[in-house]
Amino acid sequence: MTLRRRERIREVLSRRQPDLSLIAEHVHKPHNLSAVLRSCDAVGIGTVHAVNPTGGVPTYNATSASAEKWVDVLVHGSVEGAVTAVRRQGMRVYAAHLSAAAVDYREVDYVVPCALLLGNEREGVTPEAATLADAHVIIPMLGMVQSLNVSVAAAVILFEAQRQRLGAGRYAAPRLSDEEMAAIEERWLLNR
Amino acid sequence: MTLRRRERIREVLSRRQPDLSLIAEHVHKPHNLSAVLRSCDAVGIGTVHAVNPTGGVPTYNATSASAEKWVDVLVHGSVEGAVTAVRRQGMRVYAAHLSAAAVDYREVDYVVPCALLLGNEREGVTPEAATLADAHVIIPMLGMVQSLNVSVAAAVILFEAQRQRLGAGRYAAPRLSDEEMAAIEERWLLNR
Repeated sequence: MTLRRRERIREVLSRRQPDLSLIAEHVHKPHNLSAVLRSCDAVGIGTVHAVNPTGGVPTYNATSASAEKWVDVLVHGSVEGAVTAVRRQGMRVYAAHLSAAAVDYREVDYVVPCALLLGNEREGVTPEAATLADAHVIIPMLGMVQSLNVSVAAAVILFEAQRQRLGAGRYAAPRLSDEEMAAIEERWLLNR
Repeated sequence: MTLRRRERIREVLSRRQPDLSLIAEHVHKPHNLSAVLRSCDAVGIGTVHAVNPTGGVPTYNATSASAEKWVDVLVHGSVEGAVTAVRRQGMRVYAAHLSAAAVDYREVDYVVPCALLLGNEREGVTPEAATLADAHVIIPMLGMVQSLNVSVAAAVILFEAQRQRLGAGRYAAPRLSDEEMAAIEERWLLNR
């Protein structure tokens, strides 16, 4: 059983995408952040950045599929801190934000190193975050309702990123180093 | 104001896709069905089929964006009844269901008349529903967590359908008849 579990963990780690991330700006509701983490896990994101000026990590919905065990959350006091952190890793920042410059989320390139920046459902991303982003993306809403739940919007965009990366063969060979994979594997074996 | 509202309603109705639908089998949680309806509205689905043997329509989360005002829900006592209803309209049925025959949800054609069949989060679609479907589709989960919330799964697949239909020009000209549009317009003008 432990051997099978180790194999499963290695398989998942071999598909992790160190150059793909997400920044959640002021997503306060635990079940929303939990659902976002689930989608991140499913597309191979290993590290998420949460902007929370109070400094705490929002608690999660432990009854759901518990993606928080498999996705690391780094908390930043400001969106500038989060953006600086992903830029240091060479990532572009795509903000889900309606502006004159916004494009259909399917028109940007997610195969390059990038991070998706999402605000909370009520207000979207802050003006500061919108200014910091390299591009603004929108999900075309063709009906009467104008917005999607933040976890739904995250999933729709992240699975487009997965689609592009599957097409580019980015899940075909490990992207983490052997050392990184071994370290995470040991940590994950202790989970649950 | 009423004129602008009428224009907005006509614009939305001109993008409705009468040959695209969704069957929700035993999705009991109101907030889940409400979120599913929001995504349906956003991709132009005007009618959803709900399978609920007790006959009632699940109540919705009135605090959310209230897509139930813009998407009709027909309740069926059995999944067979729902499938028969969409087949009568010439639709193929794609069930979100993991089986030996299941394919990546992006590999099926959503431009043809079709309905997406979704089960509830705990059990997925019933064996009966899986048998009735024309194809089984899955969302590739590349991480440790094996499932997505039903409203998230619905959105991911529906926006793939939107992508394909945008590419095929299916939102470019009205798909409903003038009579159908006029009837819905009058009904919608009374909303709220």
